[in-house]
Amino acid sequence: MTEKKQTTIVLFSGEYDKVMAAYIIANGAAAYNHEVTIFHTFWGLNALRKDEKVQLEKGFMEKMFSKMMPRGADKMGLTKMNYLGFGPKMIKAVMKKHNSMPLPQLIDMAKDQGVKLVACTMTMDLLGLQQEELLDKIEYAGVGAYLADAENGNVNLFI
Amino acid sequence: MTEKKQTTIVLFSGEYDKVMAAYIIANGAAAYNHEVTIFHTFWGLNALRKDEKVQLEKGFMEKMFSKMMPRGADKMGLTKMNYLGFGPKMIKAVMKKHNSMPLPQLIDMAKDQGVKLVACTMTMDLLGLQQEELLDKIEYAGVGAYLADAENGNVNLFI
Amino acid sequence: MTEKKQTTIVLFSGEYDKVMAAYIIANGAAAYNHEVTIFHTFWGLNALRKDEKVQLEKGFMEKMFSKMMPRGADKMGLTKMNYLGFGPKMIKAVMKKHNSMPLPQLIDMAKDQGVKLVACTMTMDLLGLQQEELLDKIEYAGVGAYLADAENGNVNLFI
Repeated sequence: MTEKKQTTIVLFSGEYDKVMAAYIIANGAAAYNHEVTIFHTFWGLNALRKDEKVQLEKGFMEKMFSKMMPRGADKMGLTKMNYLGFGPKMIKAVMKKHNSMPLPQLIDMAKDQGVKLVACTMTMDLLGLQQEELLDKIEYAGVGAYLADAENGNVNLFI
Repeated sequence: MTEKKQTTIVLFSGEYDKVMAAYIIANGAAAYNHEVTIFHTFWGLNALRKDEKVQLEKGFMEKMFSKMMPRGADKMGLTKMNYLGFGPKMIKAVMKKHNSMPLPQLIDMAKDQGVKLVACTMTMDLLGLQQEELLDKIEYAGVGAYLADAENGNVNLFI
Repeated sequence: MTEKKQTTIVLFSGEYDKVMAAYIIANGAAAYNHEVTIFHTFWGLNALRKDEKVQLEKGFMEKMFSKMMPRGADKMGLTKMNYLGFGPKMIKAVMKKHNSMPLPQLIDMAKDQGVKLVACTMTMDLLGLQQEELLDKIEYAGVGAYLADAENGNVNLFI
C-alpha cells in the first residue's frame, strides 16, 4: 500500500503575492500527486470571499471588517512596493505579459485538482464572515482539523 | 513504545495577530498531545517580555530597542489595518465579544499545558534583552537547540 | 545506510532580518550535517543579486523592477522599525558590536558549507532578473524541484 504524500498550508496572510505563492505551491504539490490542504485563517480567509457584495445582517464591527477587507483574491495588495505607488497592477501586468495565471484562476485550478480549501471557523466568527460570502465547494473547520492533517504532512508551511 | 508527535514553531514575528496564530496552533497541538516548542527569535521575543519596566544597566542602543519594542504581547500592533487607524483595539473588541482568549491568557495557557517556551539567546544579545525582563519559567537556547527539536518534528512552522 | 536529514527553506521575503533568520537557520542546519536547500522566490530572490549594476537589455517594466528592488542582501530594509526612521543601520551596528556576521558573509558561509542556493526561474521571468545579475554558483529551478526536495525534508520552512 502506497500512501500519498501530503502538503498542508496555513494561509494566514492576505496579500496578493503571498496568496499567489501559496497557491502555486499547492497546485504544484497537487500535480505531484500530493494530497493538499490550504487552511485559510485570519487575513488569508479573504482569498475565499466572493467578489460581489452579499446582503447579510451584520453588527457594526462585522460591517466594518467586511468593508475594510478585500473581497476576494483579485483585490488584494502586495507585501511590498505598495508604498511606492505601484502595487498589484504592475505585478498583474508582468504576469499577463508572461502568460502567468492570475490568482483567481490559480484558485479555480486548485479546486479542479482537488486541493482541499478550508475556511477557519474561528476567524469567520471573529471577522464576522458568513458562509454566504465565501466561495462554493470549500470546507469549514477549526485548528484541530488542521493539526490532524498537518501531523501526517510531508510539507507543512505557514504563509 | 509510542512516541509523542512534535510541533515546533519558530516565532519570528512580533505582531499581535501572528503571535496569536502561533499560540492558538501551539495550544491546539498541546491539546492533541503533541510535544510543543515555540522558539522566540527576533521580534517574536517581545511576546515573552514582562509588561512592567525592569531597571537594568544598558548601553544606548539597548535602551533604544527596549523603548521602541512592545513590552509583552498585549502591546503589539497588527500586521494589517494599523494603517487605517484601527489596529489591535478593534481585534481585541471582537475577541472579547466572541469570548476568545486574549493573547496574554493564551500564553499562560500554553505554559500550563507544558508548551516549551524558548527565548533565542542570540536575539537577546543583539537587542540587549536580559533574563530579568522576560517572563518566568521559560528556557534559553540557540538555533542548535531549535534544530534538534525541529528535525524530529511532525509540524514545523516559521511564523 | 544512514540518510542525511534535510532542511528546505522557501525564502519568499526580501527583508534584511527575515533573510538573516533564514541564513542563520540554514547555516545551523548545515553545521548539524543536514542537506540544506534555500529556494529563493519572489522578493527573496533579491538576496542573490550581485551588488554592482549589470548592463543588460531589458523592457520598461523589467528596468523598473531592477531599480526598485534592492541589489543584494546588504541593501535590504527591515520588516519593522523602518517606519520609525531607524531601519537596518541600527541592526547592523548592534550586530557589529556583538561580532555577529553580516548577511553577505552569512550567504558566503552557506555556500562554503554546501547549502544549495536555488533561484526560482518563474520569479526571474516575472521580475525580469537574468542569470548575469545573480551570484555565481547558484542553481536555477522551479516549484517542482522545490517540492521534490521538500517532500523528503525533516525541517521545511516558508520565510
